[in-house]
Amino acid sequence: MEQKRRIVILGGGFAGAFTARHLHKRAPRNVEIELISDRNYFVFQPLLAEVAAGTINAQDAVTPLRLLLKGITVRMGEVRDIDFTNQTVQLAQGSRRIPAYRTYDHLVIALGQRTVLDRFEGFAEHSFCLRDLAHAHELRNHVIQCLEHADVTENPTLKARLLTFVIAGAGFSGVEIAGELHEMLQRTLKHYPRINRDEIKTILVQRGERILPELSPALGEYAADKMQKYGIEVRFGTSLARATGTAVYTRDGEIIPTHTLITTIGNGPTELVETLDLPMQRGRIQTEADMRVLGHTNVWALGDAALIPVGEAESAPTTAQFAVREARCLAANLVATLEERPTRPFSYAPRGTMASIGHYRAVAEVYGRKISGLTAWLLWRSFYIGMLPGFSTRLRVALNWLFDYFLPRSIVQVKTRTNSGVRVVHFAKDDVLFAPDQIVDGFYMVVHGTLESRVPMTGGEDFVRILGPGDHWGERCLTEGTPTLGKLTAVEDSELLVLESADFSRLRQALPPFADYLEHIPEKIYPPSLRPHREQ
Amino acid sequence: MEQKRRIVILGGGFAGAFTARHLHKRAPRNVEIELISDRNYFVFQPLLAEVAAGTINAQDAVTPLRLLLKGITVRMGEVRDIDFTNQTVQLAQGSRRIPAYRTYDHLVIALGQRTVLDRFEGFAEHSFCLRDLAHAHELRNHVIQCLEHADVTENPTLKARLLTFVIAGAGFSGVEIAGELHEMLQRTLKHYPRINRDEIKTILVQRGERILPELSPALGEYAADKMQKYGIEVRFGTSLARATGTAVYTRDGEIIPTHTLITTIGNGPTELVETLDLPMQRGRIQTEADMRVLGHTNVWALGDAALIPVGEAESAPTTAQFAVREARCLAANLVATLEERPTRPFSYAPRGTMASIGHYRAVAEVYGRKISGLTAWLLWRSFYIGMLPGFSTRLRVALNWLFDYFLPRSIVQVKTRTNSGVRVVHFAKDDVLFAPDQIVDGFYMVVHGTLESRVPMTGGEDFVRILGPGDHWGERCLTEGTPTLGKLTAVEDSELLVLESADFSRLRQALPPFADYLEHIPEKIYPPSLRPHREQ
Repeated sequence: MEQKRRIVILGGGFAGAFTARHLHKRAPRNVEIELISDRNYFVFQPLLAEVAAGTINAQDAVTPLRLLLKGITVRMGEVRDIDFTNQTVQLAQGSRRIPAYRTYDHLVIALGQRTVLDRFEGFAEHSFCLRDLAHAHELRNHVIQCLEHADVTENPTLKARLLTFVIAGAGFSGVEIAGELHEMLQRTLKHYPRINRDEIKTILVQRGERILPELSPALGEYAADKMQKYGIEVRFGTSLARATGTAVYTRDGEIIPTHTLITTIGNGPTELVETLDLPMQRGRIQTEADMRVLGHTNVWALGDAALIPVGEAESAPTTAQFAVREARCLAANLVATLEERPTRPFSYAPRGTMASIGHYRAVAEVYGRKISGLTAWLLWRSFYIGMLPGFSTRLRVALNWLFDYFLPRSIVQVKTRTNSGVRVVHFAKDDVLFAPDQIVDGFYMVVHGTLESRVPMTGGEDFVRILGPGDHWGERCLTEGTPTLGKLTAVEDSELLVLESADFSRLRQALPPFADYLEHIPEKIYPPSLRPHREQ
Repeated sequence: MEQKRRIVILGGGFAGAFTARHLHKRAPRNVEIELISDRNYFVFQPLLAEVAAGTINAQDAVTPLRLLLKGITVRMGEVRDIDFTNQTVQLAQGSRRIPAYRTYDHLVIALGQRTVLDRFEGFAEHSFCLRDLAHAHELRNHVIQCLEHADVTENPTLKARLLTFVIAGAGFSGVEIAGELHEMLQRTLKHYPRINRDEIKTILVQRGERILPELSPALGEYAADKMQKYGIEVRFGTSLARATGTAVYTRDGEIIPTHTLITTIGNGPTELVETLDLPMQRGRIQTEADMRVLGHTNVWALGDAALIPVGEAESAPTTAQFAVREARCLAANLVATLEERPTRPFSYAPRGTMASIGHYRAVAEVYGRKISGLTAWLLWRSFYIGMLPGFSTRLRVALNWLFDYFLPRSIVQVKTRTNSGVRVVHFAKDDVLFAPDQIVDGFYMVVHGTLESRVPMTGGEDFVRILGPGDHWGERCLTEGTPTLGKLTAVEDSELLVLESADFSRLRQALPPFADYLEHIPEKIYPPSLRPHREQ
């Protein structure tokens, strides 16, 4: 009897899922295929901007992998390590992250990329990206929270910040997000009677001199013109340097006060790929022309994670269209290898590119022809409906799009966990973190920078305390359940860690050394009149 | 000119939203109405079981309050306090929880109830409830996670636990959740090839001798019969005493190993209502027959939060049907008071009651007549479609229900934040928290109970450490990034607090006293061979 051979595919995006499908159809019968993914669904990334804007339901931008990959073993787990010598993948499975090990004869790495924002100070903590369904949910809930708050606040500075939305990068994603978001804001305004149309600012920031550099200059110009007509501010030749919780800063020194920054920039290898000892270039795994990883005979890579040479000195672009084509070629090469036939180099000439710009308009280049406006938009929609996997999803998305045309856009904000967890926040020089008589939402620890706490004292000078790295603030209000007495201001640009109030209380109860430490702070820091009364 | 009078309504559920709508229609022109809610949408609670089971989309069980209450001021905020003397409500607004104050001439309290599980040990931490949309999401994601893990694990004990689902309480909600969940499990099984139909256990636990005590015994029996035929285990005369992360315990001493407990029991006042100095009875605010709060002239209460006398020695039940009727009567009474006319006592004879039991079956009593089966189920669906606010929602829900009949049920699991936050976990005597060579997911602090950490040492006796309240575990593996060396077992029933790994690292960096403390643990606790190497 022939021995079973195992092919393990890591990743369930376009690259991984389509490789699995093609292999399932073509591979000899003695081949076992297993796909490992840390989420149990396939995300149709091009539609995430529409989910964030509420045009289509979240469920319709995704398909369960088990549905898409009928007959193929799908294992949900997080890949922790790969042992290339023993041909074993180490996983963590389930909510308790129990370890599991899977062996392979051939391994396909299709883990995509992640957003790496190290080059931009504060971006990792204060920006939204749109890689996964959860991101679309977060962005949507955040935008609605901004509108709700802007509608009721009486502070004009706060209101302006809440109503400014900045998108960094004007490639396909940036343009589509800006267009969709702007359309959503315009359409939901009727629910917010105290927000005027001209108070909303959508700003698209592009480092280069034109948007959509992937398309021809004429189409880029058309798109920029249209977007500006809808009211989107497009800034060319500008790039962002850093972000805080209340503003973004351009490299020219301009400050744009905002609570919402969406980035479409900063791609890098996933954490796992980074730790593997593989040949890397520009953050991607180097492969031969047939997608075999350099120096390996049974390890393959494709999709955004891989640097696949095409022609001379060029590599395949990181788009869904290419990933799908690479998957087909890689599956054929794997089958050829198993059957001891020669492999073929990857090559593909794309048929066209398209981008939606909101308000029922798009731009497209198909077989070299330029199309724009409503025609391009209808083409864009039909193309995506055609690409969606499964009849039921196609039907649902088509109906959603139809509904969206004549029904009001929903503005439901679903809160996920609140008052829990640890988050990093940035503040710029002179930002006021807390004014007197405010509710303290957490325990603030200074990571970088300097802050000033100033409490007015009856019949005397203010009590002033300077906080630097390692210092913290808020424990007194949290412990006593009282509002702030004074003001907390950033003296210079600062980074803080916030432990939310509920978690602060729990930790204080469960960790005696922490409680002890907090118990003895008052004598050290505060003058007698600010120390807690110890009746209880 | 007449002076404006302000009516402030707290709460946007059936009681609050419908009071606002009726007032908007009937109140004199010099009356301002403002509704304050901590979420910006109205939840159609009877449909949450269907959202959790994936029958309908989350968005279709909710309606934005601003859409439902056109022309009425809606303010999103969390009520912090009420000053009845100065007629002022204190709020926290926005994600930064900025304080705001609103004055009123009349105040309507429609804050509903919350789930209070103090009487049941471990329930608060280890059970799911279904009051809000976020709960439905959580439950759904958890159930899918259980299926995904059960499909790939090779541990039969773990698999059995993952596939056991316990529902506490067999009133309307409990029965509907059990029915919907069981149907969902049966229908999604085809995606999980390694799970057999008979491995799934859905257990409905009821303290009394019959389910649906609100209906006549014959209908309750019919429902129980049908549910048992579908494969749901119905246990009468049993009640649950406590829960851990791996099992529930009945009062008779039986242990049911499970990862999933859903409660529909334990109603109590909201945290705000608890702190107010109002006349309370059975956890509800006592009112006059006209819904004015006892001892107040301009404070009113209705819905689940209120104890409204009807007839002699009876009070209005806490159902959506009653809340809607109370809202109409309260609005009329408020208008009468403003116009200095006498108010009327609340009274209402309900027309009927219904419950869906899954698999296209329901039971109903309408105008005294008993109906069951498919007819009752169709009646139940039409009734809810009719009650839904707004044409677009009705259309969407109807279409979803139609789709659900012939399309596959989605099994997409959307993860919300992971590796972040602090959570409480319970373990029973002899539970193994960690075996050797596992990945440690957090910093474990003992709140109650005793645990044993046992590490095998080369050429010697095991290194044993006993942990009690105030002790902690996991810091060594987290700091060094290594898997467990030994085993962690609960010696008696224990409660622990877990700080997730990413937050542990952040806190260690930002809080020097914490880092100091951790730095000095190894010498105190571990033998030399287990201490970290200090090259770096």
